[in-house]
Amino acid sequence: MKTFNIAVIPGDGVGQETVPAAWRVLELAGQLSNAFAVRSHVFDWSCAYFQRHGHMMPENGLDLLKPFDAIFLGAVGFPPVPDHVSLWGLLLPIRRGFDQYINLRPIKLLRGITSPLCGYHPGDIDFVVIRENTEGEYSNSGGRLRVGTPQEVVVQNSVFTRFGTERVIRYAFNLARASRQSLTSATKSNGINFSMPFWDEVFQEVGEEYPDVKQVLYHIDALAAYFVTRPQTFDVVVGSNLFGDILTDLGAAIQGSIGIAASANINPEGQYPSMFEPVHGSAPDIAGKGLANPIGQIWTAKLMVDHLGFPDVGANILEAIERALEKGHKTPDLGGTDSTQSVTEAVMTELRH
Amino acid sequence: MKTFNIAVIPGDGVGQETVPAAWRVLELAGQLSNAFAVRSHVFDWSCAYFQRHGHMMPENGLDLLKPFDAIFLGAVGFPPVPDHVSLWGLLLPIRRGFDQYINLRPIKLLRGITSPLCGYHPGDIDFVVIRENTEGEYSNSGGRLRVGTPQEVVVQNSVFTRFGTERVIRYAFNLARASRQSLTSATKSNGINFSMPFWDEVFQEVGEEYPDVKQVLYHIDALAAYFVTRPQTFDVVVGSNLFGDILTDLGAAIQGSIGIAASANINPEGQYPSMFEPVHGSAPDIAGKGLANPIGQIWTAKLMVDHLGFPDVGANILEAIERALEKGHKTPDLGGTDSTQSVTEAVMTELRH
Ligand SMILES: CC(C)[C@H](C(=O)O)[C@@H](O)C(=O)O
Ligand SMILES: CC(C)[C@H](C(=O)O)[C@@H](O)C(=O)O
Repeated sequence: MKTFNIAVIPGDGVGQETVPAAWRVLELAGQLSNAFAVRSHVFDWSCAYFQRHGHMMPENGLDLLKPFDAIFLGAVGFPPVPDHVSLWGLLLPIRRGFDQYINLRPIKLLRGITSPLCGYHPGDIDFVVIRENTEGEYSNSGGRLRVGTPQEVVVQNSVFTRFGTERVIRYAFNLARASRQSLTSATKSNGINFSMPFWDEVFQEVGEEYPDVKQVLYHIDALAAYFVTRPQTFDVVVGSNLFGDILTDLGAAIQGSIGIAASANINPEGQYPSMFEPVHGSAPDIAGKGLANPIGQIWTAKLMVDHLGFPDVGANILEAIERALEKGHKTPDLGGTDSTQSVTEAVMTELRH
Repeated sequence: MKTFNIAVIPGDGVGQETVPAAWRVLELAGQLSNAFAVRSHVFDWSCAYFQRHGHMMPENGLDLLKPFDAIFLGAVGFPPVPDHVSLWGLLLPIRRGFDQYINLRPIKLLRGITSPLCGYHPGDIDFVVIRENTEGEYSNSGGRLRVGTPQEVVVQNSVFTRFGTERVIRYAFNLARASRQSLTSATKSNGINFSMPFWDEVFQEVGEEYPDVKQVLYHIDALAAYFVTRPQTFDVVVGSNLFGDILTDLGAAIQGSIGIAASANINPEGQYPSMFEPVHGSAPDIAGKGLANPIGQIWTAKLMVDHLGFPDVGANILEAIERALEKGHKTPDLGGTDSTQSVTEAVMTELRH
């Protein structure tokens, strides 16, 4: 039986509650399967850490994380530390430093959940968004001129490389081929006139190697609208860093709550550890109250289990989540009255059966 | 009685059908009101024009448009002319050349329409998006290095000026003050680390002059999700060129069909003519078949009438649209069986009563 060493970063706000909750489910799933065990090493990197130390993680943070089999993260960001400080000090350096260029986010209407969209039933909505996770619109490149004056000019550079664009599109094509359906590309080449025509070119070139995959291209504005008007038509969707970010929050909304949405930051070559974090943030307004929905974090644990090579165990976790939801175990964001704790217990109970 | 000279550009695809339809409504509304008349001068600038002349409009196109009181446009873009050629050759030069820095787009669930969102009734959703329309992410600035090689790098610059950012935010604040409610700003300062923190700074600075307006700031990903989960909470929303683009298509989706969404490109100082165009595109798949929904274009005519100084007449047009919809006059995009023509007739009938 294999034991995995997991770097655990609860981070800020509700991460402090959802991470321990999901960890219990993860441990139990390993035990029950007799296939693997997990050993945690907890890092207290967070905004509280920042307030004590002046940085979000130690300078050698990435070196400390590197030996682990995976990273399990809660949420980053808490007032009064500005978001761009906390995120560029912890979350984004890990995504980049470990070349986790695939951000995989499933959008699925689970059993027991009512979508805000009329007329959809569990299973009707079921697709995956592949988001580029290391470059593009989040390039940390740009500057400001004549700061504070009426003549101020601010430039933000989106940097796209062929290397970075090709590999994410190729990953998405392989996934679409495996599911034998379609790949939808998010573009905006009609308005954004250097990076997006380039994105389209790469999509078309790589696409020539996948004649068996149906290829669809939509501008991001239309695509966002289609997430609302015909989400059942998607299979795999690929988008740039920003477009993937927007589409996956929107996807979280149509699947019922951002509190259930899961996310994997993957380095497919396995050169570096991959990182697993839910889509939701630290939710300062409800932090510490036992109200946080643990399902986003538990579903995220499922993605980690898949990644570590145990998709059957992953499937069991998702099945347990769905059964718990069907029995009505829901936190307030889903219209229920359960606590973080009781939803977690319910999922564990289902897992045992 | 005042006569307005309107430059009419039906453009491509369904624009050829919706513009003449909406024009009839516009003329009738003027006549019935006894307040104004409209005289059209039609320009055939379009992708067909491009195929004959090698450009989307004559070199002195803006000079030709300048004397008009307003521009009434259908849609731009048709295969095989690439979108970035047609749009950067016609639509975008007018928005920029005439400094139409306000793109105003109402999001309203009309009577007679069912939203794809469960549980919303006409009137529940009713807000306005103000989109920056001349700079930002659509700055036509950037370039490509090592084109076509594995080492290719593409840079797209988003250029934000204090001048451009302040004026659109101020416009939105004035609108919010007039409606005595809230202003929501779309940002992404946690990920996009030069332009968006700047946007937030300007929002806060200008906001200090409007202590009576409730001020809310959301990251674009969360905001897109909120358009689905609680659209009833918005009053005025302000966003950059790209964010406004995405939010308004999403808004069109929640209000029932992109085919009904209206849009005004306004130069508030009146130095140049403003341009009125629906949110939808040229819809090549249904063009020429009499299936196009004329309501986006008719509602757009209403915005033009408002702008020309006759809000009462504008209100009559919207009332006629709602009554026609309530009586079931709907094109296929709204689940009906009416034609462009018969919906238009129905609106005119209601206008007469
Ligand atoms: C056609 C395209 C360039 C345009 C835009 O993005 O501005 C359209 O989507 C719109 O919203 O008017
Ligand atoms: C917090 C923020 C920087 C982050 C992002 O935009 O990547 C988040 O929205 C996400 O989707 O993981």
